[in-house]
Amino acid sequence: MSESLAGKAAALDAADELAGARKLFALDETVYLDGNSLGALPAHVPARVADVVTRQWGELRIRSWDESGWWTAPERIGDRIAPLVGAGPGQVVVGDSTSVNVFKAVVGAIRLCERTGDPSRTDILVDATTFPTDGYIAESAARMTGKRLVPVAPADLPAALGPNTAVALVNHVDFRTGRLHDLPSLTAAIHEAGALAVWDLCHSAGALPVGLDAHGVDLAVGCTYKYLNGGPGSPAYLYVAERHQAAFDSPLPGWNSHTDPFAMTSAYEAAPGAVRGRVGTPDILSMLALEAALDVWDGVSIDSVRAKSLALTDFFLECVELYVPQGRVTSLTPLEHASRGSQIALRCEQAPAVMEKLIARGVVGDLRRPDVLRFGFTPLYVGFADAERAASVLAEVLAEVLAGIPAA
Amino acid sequence: MSESLAGKAAALDAADELAGARKLFALDETVYLDGNSLGALPAHVPARVADVVTRQWGELRIRSWDESGWWTAPERIGDRIAPLVGAGPGQVVVGDSTSVNVFKAVVGAIRLCERTGDPSRTDILVDATTFPTDGYIAESAARMTGKRLVPVAPADLPAALGPNTAVALVNHVDFRTGRLHDLPSLTAAIHEAGALAVWDLCHSAGALPVGLDAHGVDLAVGCTYKYLNGGPGSPAYLYVAERHQAAFDSPLPGWNSHTDPFAMTSAYEAAPGAVRGRVGTPDILSMLALEAALDVWDGVSIDSVRAKSLALTDFFLECVELYVPQGRVTSLTPLEHASRGSQIALRCEQAPAVMEKLIARGVVGDLRRPDVLRFGFTPLYVGFADAERAASVLAEVLAEVLAGIPAA
Repeated sequence: MSESLAGKAAALDAADELAGARKLFALDETVYLDGNSLGALPAHVPARVADVVTRQWGELRIRSWDESGWWTAPERIGDRIAPLVGAGPGQVVVGDSTSVNVFKAVVGAIRLCERTGDPSRTDILVDATTFPTDGYIAESAARMTGKRLVPVAPADLPAALGPNTAVALVNHVDFRTGRLHDLPSLTAAIHEAGALAVWDLCHSAGALPVGLDAHGVDLAVGCTYKYLNGGPGSPAYLYVAERHQAAFDSPLPGWNSHTDPFAMTSAYEAAPGAVRGRVGTPDILSMLALEAALDVWDGVSIDSVRAKSLALTDFFLECVELYVPQGRVTSLTPLEHASRGSQIALRCEQAPAVMEKLIARGVVGDLRRPDVLRFGFTPLYVGFADAERAASVLAEVLAEVLAGIPAA
Repeated sequence: MSESLAGKAAALDAADELAGARKLFALDETVYLDGNSLGALPAHVPARVADVVTRQWGELRIRSWDESGWWTAPERIGDRIAPLVGAGPGQVVVGDSTSVNVFKAVVGAIRLCERTGDPSRTDILVDATTFPTDGYIAESAARMTGKRLVPVAPADLPAALGPNTAVALVNHVDFRTGRLHDLPSLTAAIHEAGALAVWDLCHSAGALPVGLDAHGVDLAVGCTYKYLNGGPGSPAYLYVAERHQAAFDSPLPGWNSHTDPFAMTSAYEAAPGAVRGRVGTPDILSMLALEAALDVWDGVSIDSVRAKSLALTDFFLECVELYVPQGRVTSLTPLEHASRGSQIALRCEQAPAVMEKLIARGVVGDLRRPDVLRFGFTPLYVGFADAERAASVLAEVLAEVLAGIPAA
């Protein structure tokens, strides 16, 4: 350990205006750098979940659909997420997995293009480096709507846009490299080409400002179990910009999206607003755990979260630079702030063994096969001393695992 | 209250081999006849959910995907449900809402028909009296596959089947009337016509034998929050018969259904077996609450559940017949056992006011607009004294609400 970097970490932690948020989470001495995969448990959530199970379900039973607000949870919790992604109220609805929401969003965007734009457009452009489910689901959407799927690297997206582009599906932050894509300028380019922009916010929401409304995004999806700490597999969300809602035509028109669901009529009539994105009965336990988890955001500005995120990843890279011998790791994450999300991805030899030893020593990141170590920095509960310790333990582990292997 | 019926109830309860199961549930003095909408809380579930939240999520965090068996939960819990619906292992997978599973099943069946049957068949027959979401989703499936949706009353289904029929989607028990449809003979008729049978088991699974394998059903879906007591909005399940799995082609090919999800490759390759029906990351809290809830079935035979269900609904009808003046209510539920599910649906005047007063007096059923009172009988926790009390309170309430209104 370097005295100077440890001292710098202590000074940074002392000056951190978000340092107080860590006590809101159930954390131990582990350095938890996997909040970009599963966010840590907010400490008050167990009691809230217990109330949902024991009193709302166990005692009120069916009455809770009204009396405990279960029925309206998807849109109510959507409105809690909305300010974190720069959306006004009434445009975000929670429910289903991210994959299912990608299907709604991409098919919905294609139909919007057909109805309100140019029905002759044939292409769905999809981020070729995307988290795979987006590509698989976009391919299914293309197949079921008679469109053509065109995978393209985000850097090449502007050049690939053209008069045949109906929809572009882009990740805000790449799950593997942590690269942040330029949402404002790519959205503008997509619109310039006459197409619709669908953004996947899984790796950005809760870590940095998104600005859906400000940048005129058409549709977006995201998960809630990473930087939003909603719990394992907590429901995802769908954003449909208000201007598109009246024409939004969901491929999954379940009874929860009917304008009068309890009429239980055989003719489907879509509800107005964000509710149109609902499908079936919401999974209340997971959903209300998420609602409780969102309390940690009360009074937190996403701009201060972003500032701390960049300071943390800068500092981690500084520590890695000092502690790890040259050539042992290569960062896949861009150095420039404008292109960096809230994780650092390091490529190294023997990555599986390295991550295994890191975890055994209390530094929890994860592995993306074959050779990428991911370290996620959640500003609400990760501090600068954590970053220093992670780099220090990484250097130790690399020295052991790679002993005798020449550096690249 | 009639001494004789109260006495008969006591004798029936004393002889009830399932009477001991009631103590497995968190129940009070309420007569809870809405388990066909939301099953009661099994008493041991809160402690299990607390462990999932506090230890598995809070302490093990990301490690729980392996160490707590989160990743394999959808197929493991599917195998817990399988014997309740007469399915061998490896054919049922849990996840998503019923609506989403209807979409997978209907599109999947259409594609099976195209690939392994007759691709020129044009029609999807759907139960015209179905729970509406099935119809809405089947309509979307038809639209997205270029097929034609043909709504038909289940009684008319055999006559409507023909050389153009690709798929028939039928409810096992009608949500409104409680009518049980003849799964063996309808499945045989559908097969006779060269089509595939998709069954919705929401209102039958856990209340009566289904026999999916024995009767050669092709695909099926069902929810888990009614007679399976999984909790509000607990995840639904999808059954794909083993003989169809290799050709099953999901319209929602999320990364969880990939044969090697953590390879995270851009090319989709479907997993073998029931896993192919998965989509995105499973909602672990809701799913593991369901897994715990299924413990109440240990050692319970579904045949004894069915026998008690019929005895309960017979006895309730007997009590209603004696207590309620002629013409005040009409049962929509068939008298013959072979056509009866596990609920009684009574039509009456002023039904909303009647149900409101029933609930206020501790008899909880529900209303299906405009004029149907539903009373669900869950054999694991409803007894004969409950049935007698429900009929007795119903008679009191009807006398008050309908005072001065001539009987029909």
